[in-house]
Amino acid sequence: MSFKKLGKRTYKLSCPPSIAGHANCVGDKEGQGPLKDSFDYISADPFFGEKSWEKAESSMVKKAYSMALDKAALSHSSIDMLFAGDLLNQCVGTTFGLRESGAAHFGVYGACSTMAESLALASMAVDGGFADTAAAVTCSHFCTAERQFRTPLEYGGQRTPTAQWTVTGAGAVVLKSFGPGPYVTHITPGMIVDPGIVDANNMGAAMAPAAYDTIKTHFEDTGRTPADYDLIVTGDLGKVGSNILVDFFKKDGVDISKQHTDCGLLIFDLKGQDVHAGGSGCGCSASVLTGYLLNGMREGRWKRILFAATGALMSTTTSQQGESIPGISCAVVIDTAQ
Amino acid sequence: MSFKKLGKRTYKLSCPPSIAGHANCVGDKEGQGPLKDSFDYISADPFFGEKSWEKAESSMVKKAYSMALDKAALSHSSIDMLFAGDLLNQCVGTTFGLRESGAAHFGVYGACSTMAESLALASMAVDGGFADTAAAVTCSHFCTAERQFRTPLEYGGQRTPTAQWTVTGAGAVVLKSFGPGPYVTHITPGMIVDPGIVDANNMGAAMAPAAYDTIKTHFEDTGRTPADYDLIVTGDLGKVGSNILVDFFKKDGVDISKQHTDCGLLIFDLKGQDVHAGGSGCGCSASVLTGYLLNGMREGRWKRILFAATGALMSTTTSQQGESIPGISCAVVIDTAQ
Repeated sequence: MSFKKLGKRTYKLSCPPSIAGHANCVGDKEGQGPLKDSFDYISADPFFGEKSWEKAESSMVKKAYSMALDKAALSHSSIDMLFAGDLLNQCVGTTFGLRESGAAHFGVYGACSTMAESLALASMAVDGGFADTAAAVTCSHFCTAERQFRTPLEYGGQRTPTAQWTVTGAGAVVLKSFGPGPYVTHITPGMIVDPGIVDANNMGAAMAPAAYDTIKTHFEDTGRTPADYDLIVTGDLGKVGSNILVDFFKKDGVDISKQHTDCGLLIFDLKGQDVHAGGSGCGCSASVLTGYLLNGMREGRWKRILFAATGALMSTTTSQQGESIPGISCAVVIDTAQ
Repeated sequence: MSFKKLGKRTYKLSCPPSIAGHANCVGDKEGQGPLKDSFDYISADPFFGEKSWEKAESSMVKKAYSMALDKAALSHSSIDMLFAGDLLNQCVGTTFGLRESGAAHFGVYGACSTMAESLALASMAVDGGFADTAAAVTCSHFCTAERQFRTPLEYGGQRTPTAQWTVTGAGAVVLKSFGPGPYVTHITPGMIVDPGIVDANNMGAAMAPAAYDTIKTHFEDTGRTPADYDLIVTGDLGKVGSNILVDFFKKDGVDISKQHTDCGLLIFDLKGQDVHAGGSGCGCSASVLTGYLLNGMREGRWKRILFAATGALMSTTTSQQGESIPGISCAVVIDTAQ
């Protein structure tokens, strides 16, 4: 019956929604990285003029969303549905940043895969005939994440070589039911994959099996191969997780190394910026997608990308209780053609 | 273009999905309350045989979901999409409870409105032609919520008269694209409404304006009145919030007192069970919907209900930073007729 379903877990949209606007807002460190020219707003102040890091995170969200609406030439009141979430406990980064939006609000939680999850849901809402306009918004902030998940910044704890650096950034994508593209044409939602990793300083390894499962399922479901994509972009596997992913495919006799890249590897200069294994956080894939990737598509650099953001679904409590770290990866195809 | 949209924020499903299965799993206190006969599984042990309260919460989720699948005569592998979330930081209650489900997983966060939000999204996925089968799952546990949001249980803190008691319970609803009903026919998603309440011990007052906004919008969008419903059920406004909601409508010249009830008032005996203003938590509306309400509909007691779950979108951090408590309420119409 579900005519949009291909194979096991991929959905082909019947009226692919058009990306009408996209914007981001990042911190100083991101603004000094290799993608600096792709960001819409770079703040030298980690507080973004606010009194706490959490308020700063909400402020980034508000700004990124407003800029994306401006680019789409849409007002706040013209958005039918808003899908948003973040890493903070109870998703307060997006909730407080968007509390004046006036749109139907769906809070989502996909950890660092939230940009892809919210974009998938927003696309489904448009394609399903519910929304004419929908938005996907997410964020992370290095200082709120360190405080919440790791140690107080003042403590100055030493980071392991596998650790990643949470991106200070927010990204927003605005969809319309019709437009010149680029379009969201396919969705392969993630299932939870738990490889049994317990080291919370090695998220890349915890998430790589989920990315492998989703991307492999996507290829099987669609009959496509890596060569059908200009880019296969994971969210924040970083150096460790990216190597694992490429190795997994190599064992299947599939070489994804030509097309594969990772937002966590793109956003920082791994040699010069002391970020160890790369960037991470909801804001990592969100700010790379809404800048470097979508700008590049509009400039004709790439025609079709597979964007597979990745998330680690643990909390400090589950880690303290000795639990392993389940991963998830949601993929969406963004194509300049419908 | 969006032919499913009525008025401002209501969506009329074109092929209303059928509720094929529903089940719940609750704790001892809930099992002693007025709705005891409507629960599928009552555990005398608050740990549900596990070693921590968090693991207990995940265990409840797993059980409720399995029972709902059994009732729907569906296997885990036949579910296309799963929408789930809870109150725990990073939604680990549902993530860990459902990590072996094998379904496409969409994590959602709507605080105590999660049952309605996940049911709305699952319904949209089915109605939009994406899923043949979809599930909505949520939970809460008194002990995990107290530990996370308030004080250690051992501290024995005194509760204010406006405080509510987090329900220990999980609920799951399984939808199919075709079936004998009851059906999800309309959705009115919530927008964030922040009335400026800062007292984290008075959630009912913080959420009532959101419930009022959603229910009022629903009436305006559909042209329906309270008399069109056998029941108008809010999630966990409790005694304080319910009175506020009825008063708000009274000021508009609308009497909802005949149809209105609240899951937080139904689940406990407010006089005998020392719960102060009533029940709360994601598990409150979830276990009342999947037991008392849906059983009652199948037994012919009610034909059409408006289920408007309510959520308070703050965290301990935002409260400590002096922020107010934004509320949200998502409503779905459940009807024995399509």
